[in-house]
Amino acid sequence: MLQLPTFDDVAAAARRLQGHAHRTPVNRSTTANQLLGAEVFFKCENFQRMGAFKFRGAFNALSQFNAQQKSKGAIAFSSGNHAQAIALSARLLGMPAVILMPMDAPQSKIDATRGYGAEVILFDRYKEDREALTKKVAQQREMTLIPPFDHPDVIAGQGTAAMELIEEVGELDVLFVCLGGGGLLSGSALATRALSPRCQIYGVEPEAGNDAQQSMAKGEIVHIETPRTIADGAQTQHLGRYTFEVIRRDVTGILTATDEQLVEAMRFFAERMKMVVEPTGCLGFAAARHAGIDLAGKRVGVIISGGNVDLPRYAQLIGQGLA
Amino acid sequence: MLQLPTFDDVAAAARRLQGHAHRTPVNRSTTANQLLGAEVFFKCENFQRMGAFKFRGAFNALSQFNAQQKSKGAIAFSSGNHAQAIALSARLLGMPAVILMPMDAPQSKIDATRGYGAEVILFDRYKEDREALTKKVAQQREMTLIPPFDHPDVIAGQGTAAMELIEEVGELDVLFVCLGGGGLLSGSALATRALSPRCQIYGVEPEAGNDAQQSMAKGEIVHIETPRTIADGAQTQHLGRYTFEVIRRDVTGILTATDEQLVEAMRFFAERMKMVVEPTGCLGFAAARHAGIDLAGKRVGVIISGGNVDLPRYAQLIGQGLA
Repeated sequence: MLQLPTFDDVAAAARRLQGHAHRTPVNRSTTANQLLGAEVFFKCENFQRMGAFKFRGAFNALSQFNAQQKSKGAIAFSSGNHAQAIALSARLLGMPAVILMPMDAPQSKIDATRGYGAEVILFDRYKEDREALTKKVAQQREMTLIPPFDHPDVIAGQGTAAMELIEEVGELDVLFVCLGGGGLLSGSALATRALSPRCQIYGVEPEAGNDAQQSMAKGEIVHIETPRTIADGAQTQHLGRYTFEVIRRDVTGILTATDEQLVEAMRFFAERMKMVVEPTGCLGFAAARHAGIDLAGKRVGVIISGGNVDLPRYAQLIGQGLA
Repeated sequence: MLQLPTFDDVAAAARRLQGHAHRTPVNRSTTANQLLGAEVFFKCENFQRMGAFKFRGAFNALSQFNAQQKSKGAIAFSSGNHAQAIALSARLLGMPAVILMPMDAPQSKIDATRGYGAEVILFDRYKEDREALTKKVAQQREMTLIPPFDHPDVIAGQGTAAMELIEEVGELDVLFVCLGGGGLLSGSALATRALSPRCQIYGVEPEAGNDAQQSMAKGEIVHIETPRTIADGAQTQHLGRYTFEVIRRDVTGILTATDEQLVEAMRFFAERMKMVVEPTGCLGFAAARHAGIDLAGKRVGVIISGGNVDLPRYAQLIGQGLA
């Protein structure tokens, strides 16, 4: 049996993050309220350190390393926000970090990860097995591997965003959370079940990659091909063992959003709320608007997961839209 | 002699705005600190109601109307943020509002102003005299004219942004403020002289429209042609009588920024701080970065004035840059 993380773990993570993670703002918009006929609270993790909620889970995991682990450091594979989250957390905690990234990852992400002081090892993702390679380097260097979502400490850390949201605005009727591997969603579910027990909790994944929806229907983890979607943070192929169990137990349902709806939401955030939100971060609001959940007169939370998107790409999406 | 507004007027405005204006966040950026070698505090009026600081001055002015004025309402001429500020303030205070706008104003601005419930009167700016027309309508309808910057109540209201900034972060060494007609700058100067007396205060205007710089040098209000700049909120032709006197007395100096520097700052805000800032709102940071003021080790405030920019135009500026 897996030992699933609990709300106590989320609360302990919140204490560890105090003074290290930003307590991100909860922003509101009269226009969003009118569009949904509801009172909407946006938890803005795009203003989190390194631009995404991922810092919470990474820091929570690394800050629990023992002296031996700390001296050897942390290793991760990621071409996205998890890479920068591990790199920054390691630097803040004074330990080495190695990040494996595909050699065709955007140069900006490689530079940003190196900028936080991590060693980046590039690999050819068409010729080399990422997991095997990571394990090999981890063993050689005696480093501790922190996966991007399927880890109790990572899940507990991610749950602190929803915890802060409910602490700040009070109980909610419905909460929408972006969903890739399920770290943010399962952490949010732990916090919400404890602090706002009657709240409906929806995970939102890209329509093109609805593996979690399929997994819930089937009662087991479904694997899919890497989905084609602009939501690069949600291009996961399957849930994790921990995240699947928590989601199955605590989440009301899984919804999807199309890339067109994500672009519409990106434009809304820019035009009306003056915020840059990455495509993945738009999943929650897109579903709140289009997925058919009755929100009339309700208190609705939406977690915006991050704001890391290459600027030319961002300009293209809000200017011309999908190519 | 003009009766110039004082810090007491700013403090009274803050009480009137309580519960009506947002207390906007003060955002920070490690990268900005590194770039300037300083500790930088950004007061984010792009997150203010209707997307700009202008709400503060408009609401402060309208909330002091007597019963007779209130029943007849407010009138203003503006194609920019002042129009929406007056319209929204009037609606919140339950009075009519008329806004005169040039018929070639962007449809989005006309729609937004009407959306706040104001009556919009369009005029042909090549054939009609705006000021004469406004006076005529004001007299016919017995409405009170609120100018966009040169009014003691407007200046006092705008000063509440700097007041909140210093209350929140403590005294500053240097403050950079965007400068068009000088309402925000003179209000900021009143607040800063009272709350952080040793702080240097710089107004920043577009290089192509440096009328305030010329006015300070000459010791009198200099009029210029409408400048060609992307900073549409600072395309003013001259300071006001009130703003000139306060600026002359309380401001350390006037700096300028080029359109290229404004685009660079817009990109920085989007990429690093996940914020949409309109070109005018970038003036302060652009000068902090490029105007040659020694900031090493100092505590620096930057007021971001607003985030209202048409989305296609915004996408073009951060994507392709100046055409």
